Amino acid sequence: MDDIPQETLKLKLRQIIFGTDTKAGRYFDISLIVCIVLSVALVFVDTIDSIHSRYGEWIRIAEWCFTGIFTIEYLLRLYCSALPVQYARSFYGVVDLLSILPSYLALIFPGANFTLVIRVLRLFRIFRVLKLLRYLSEGNLLLRAMIQSSRKVFLFFFSVSLIVMVLSAIMYVVEGPEHGFTSMPKSIYWTIVTITTVGYGDITPQTTLGQGIAALTMLIGYSIIAIPTGILTSEISQEMVRKKDLRRCSNCLKMGHEVSALYCDKCGSELETDL
Amino acid sequence: MDDIPQETLKLKLRQIIFGTDTKAGRYFDISLIVCIVLSVALVFVDTIDSIHSRYGEWIRIAEWCFTGIFTIEYLLRLYCSALPVQYARSFYGVVDLLSILPSYLALIFPGANFTLVIRVLRLFRIFRVLKLLRYLSEGNLLLRAMIQSSRKVFLFFFSVSLIVMVLSAIMYVVEGPEHGFTSMPKSIYWTIVTITTVGYGDITPQTTLGQGIAALTMLIGYSIIAIPTGILTSEISQEMVRKKDLRRCSNCLKMGHEVSALYCDKCGSELETDL
Amino acid sequence: MDDIPQETLKLKLRQIIFGTDTKAGRYFDISLIVCIVLSVALVFVDTIDSIHSRYGEWIRIAEWCFTGIFTIEYLLRLYCSALPVQYARSFYGVVDLLSILPSYLALIFPGANFTLVIRVLRLFRIFRVLKLLRYLSEGNLLLRAMIQSSRKVFLFFFSVSLIVMVLSAIMYVVEGPEHGFTSMPKSIYWTIVTITTVGYGDITPQTTLGQGIAALTMLIGYSIIAIPTGILTSEISQEMVRKKDLRRCSNCLKMGHEVSALYCDKCGSELETDL
Amino acid sequence: MDDIPQETLKLKLRQIIFGTDTKAGRYFDISLIVCIVLSVALVFVDTIDSIHSRYGEWIRIAEWCFTGIFTIEYLLRLYCSALPVQYARSFYGVVDLLSILPSYLALIFPGANFTLVIRVLRLFRIFRVLKLLRYLSEGNLLLRAMIQSSRKVFLFFFSVSLIVMVLSAIMYVVEGPEHGFTSMPKSIYWTIVTITTVGYGDITPQTTLGQGIAALTMLIGYSIIAIPTGILTSEISQEMVRKKDLRRCSNCLKMGHEVSALYCDKCGSELETDL
Repeated sequence: MDDIPQETLKLKLRQIIFGTDTKAGRYFDISLIVCIVLSVALVFVDTIDSIHSRYGEWIRIAEWCFTGIFTIEYLLRLYCSALPVQYARSFYGVVDLLSILPSYLALIFPGANFTLVIRVLRLFRIFRVLKLLRYLSEGNLLLRAMIQSSRKVFLFFFSVSLIVMVLSAIMYVVEGPEHGFTSMPKSIYWTIVTITTVGYGDITPQTTLGQGIAALTMLIGYSIIAIPTGILTSEISQEMVRKKDLRRCSNCLKMGHEVSALYCDKCGSELETDL
Repeated sequence: MDDIPQETLKLKLRQIIFGTDTKAGRYFDISLIVCIVLSVALVFVDTIDSIHSRYGEWIRIAEWCFTGIFTIEYLLRLYCSALPVQYARSFYGVVDLLSILPSYLALIFPGANFTLVIRVLRLFRIFRVLKLLRYLSEGNLLLRAMIQSSRKVFLFFFSVSLIVMVLSAIMYVVEGPEHGFTSMPKSIYWTIVTITTVGYGDITPQTTLGQGIAALTMLIGYSIIAIPTGILTSEISQEMVRKKDLRRCSNCLKMGHEVSALYCDKCGSELETDL
Repeated sequence: MDDIPQETLKLKLRQIIFGTDTKAGRYFDISLIVCIVLSVALVFVDTIDSIHSRYGEWIRIAEWCFTGIFTIEYLLRLYCSALPVQYARSFYGVVDLLSILPSYLALIFPGANFTLVIRVLRLFRIFRVLKLLRYLSEGNLLLRAMIQSSRKVFLFFFSVSLIVMVLSAIMYVVEGPEHGFTSMPKSIYWTIVTITTVGYGDITPQTTLGQGIAALTMLIGYSIIAIPTGILTSEISQEMVRKKDLRRCSNCLKMGHEVSALYCDKCGSELETDL
Repeated sequence: MDDIPQETLKLKLRQIIFGTDTKAGRYFDISLIVCIVLSVALVFVDTIDSIHSRYGEWIRIAEWCFTGIFTIEYLLRLYCSALPVQYARSFYGVVDLLSILPSYLALIFPGANFTLVIRVLRLFRIFRVLKLLRYLSEGNLLLRAMIQSSRKVFLFFFSVSLIVMVLSAIMYVVEGPEHGFTSMPKSIYWTIVTITTVGYGDITPQTTLGQGIAALTMLIGYSIIAIPTGILTSEISQEMVRKKDLRRCSNCLKMGHEVSALYCDKCGSELETDL
């Protein structure tokens, strides 16, 4: 790890840009994250009318600076990557490209109506922030618990969507277009608003029967929230227990023994007791 | 399983329509599901005014095609079933009939006012989607956990409904008809809207005392959601542990080994491996 | 239990009215519950204007019938109780009296303004339904889990009320009376509506800073719901495990051993293994 | 503990003011808490217009009395503390100072516009109530569970805020300023209102596409609430088990006995009893 005497520029750059184990690599990553957060904040702040009218010009300049920085970064990544095509096709490669493209497209197509679409694409720069996740390795336990429980959660959501459809149909017929339930999609929207206990109040049942069914919908929503919580809690508990005892048998290398086990339950050799 | 040399048409059909273990049977089921989803989507889309006025005629034709398909399917099921009467009386038999009936009833009673009722009945076709559940066998653990905890959950809902009634009565007296609490049913509706934390805002307390009781109602609702979650989580955890390993050591009779264990970690004798 | 040859009327009545282990006692309880539920339903239905104006007279007569039944029941309980004073002072004794009192009070004070207060008191009859809880013995586990966790839940609610007060004060200053936050009690009401995720929308923040603090309040409310759930779930899990192994030591009569225990951990004598 | 024959005034005062193990110390603490609660209640009640106009003068006098009491308490704490500078810089030292400062500042700067700021600062007195937490020692288990799970919860909130930003950007573009989504901060506010299932209804999606994305937002919010609950529940369960018994059998070194166990259930030797 300390005898890398002769390296080409490409290798050095790769170590800085893609690597995270050298000092330079860490500094590069941190300054990149700062740039990403700042550029996203800029786009957000620019949507406020009072700020746009006063500092709009300055924001436009800062915007181009960030676009320049991200363009250089993208080209450097393409240049120094061992597999440039694979990088360009990867999730982060596409996100990197999408985050610089809108600014250039605005130059080529200067139409007035095009501005809105550009703005949408420009917001994709948010996805760059997702890169931050690279720097947090804690999420594995959570992710594993979620993958373990995904089948059960899918089944739960499938059942819920059936309940939602049935309730939507009933409410559509009971309340009807005159009380805001103008179509089935709108009725489904109302049912989801109600079953998730959001309750905007933009569409509310007016008839007594409708209010009764609405109350039932709420109680269903209130109760079934217990199900995914129960599934996930059980999985997380199990993942924690699994992680808990990481003692490795010195004979057969098996890990994950019970905390109270004295002998390896695979080969029978004695286990170390360190706590 | 591979020597069924001579079969009548009935047996072959039964294997295709009711069975799921042959290639033809699986293809039949999948195409049936596609038909059900499409026909439900059609009914949903038809409720949107702009689509109904433009494509209404096409949807009516497609509607009749689906009705034809489901009629043929229903008759075939009746024909090839080993116990036709039992099928007709079963849950899916009734749903199958209800999903085709409305279209035919609309022909017999062509009254204008009758259309709405037909529409309601036609929406029952949604229940056909429940058949999809047949194809998911994961739900057993969840279902068992829910059945195990049903007594406790019932007791919980009984207590909640008592609390709801008491709070409704108090709010009805405190706020009164002039603030929207026109009757006890309406007051119960408000209490359920509040205790489930839905909070439409169509009826809100106006007096200071009423707002205090409302705040109490919210805190009750916010707290007691923990109870069904706690019940269900504990049950799911136990079901998972129960499922985890039911192998019994033939030597020392110890149960509850880890799923991957080959030897009993108490006496060292070998365990059966059946999974 | 089967040699009670000579009983006075009092003893027989007590067995019927207070007891639940004879056939007559069970019939008495069930018909009483039916009466309570019917009388409560009557009071509820009477608050609906259209029903009150049409069937008001009939409801008033039924009301008096139920008052008569409950008066007779109350007097019988006083007569046959072994400790009449103790019964009259007990929770159910007071509730029984309160549920019949309002109707008689309305006769003595026939003032028009007095009607509303009478109505409030009459609604106390709902509490009679609480007697139904006598017939459900499942609730012990839940109750024990809640008592076990009451200290932690109290601490939780104390912390939450401090957070609510601080947030209310900040919002009162930030938004001020012109945006609906007219006083601290109103601001506290808003904070509870928000932190419990009810969200009526009758008072909403208008300034950008206020909306930021509101968003923070929501996130706090959304997160801390996990705490009581976590406390209660853990307690219920432990109660279930505790209940699980009910083996009694034949030597010292201790119950609640660990499932895997072979010897009693109190006196050391061997335990039976029956599963 | 009973031979403290000669003490200076300072030591005695310190024992009363900072200590809680003498009778005088406990009385001092309790009367201090009563004063804090009363003074906070006074500030709250003063914000109600009808009370302020009628009793405003009396409240101002009571306010000054409390300020006097708290000033004396603060000076005494500084005088008798073993480390006065350390106390003045500690959390409670700063809070104690902040709770008396506003009243004096109002004398020095009697400007009319300054009143509001004074009121804000005066509300900091609420934080004094936090001192009450000193008197509850139950919170350790909860706190430890929260610290243990803080990394996972932080990761969760980081992911949620990314999801919130992406959904806000999409809704800002889809709905636009004409439907209330006037800027990105407002759009973020709406997303948090929706994802936490608060649902004020002050800003609601109007377009069909917007309602679809809103429904998705609600379902995300409804589902992910399971994650912090799962994390915390698992941690609390583990903390409870950990707390349950840390006694180690001196013979076989087995840990994790039941709290009530007198003998080790593995080897039968007696256990220490320290609780």
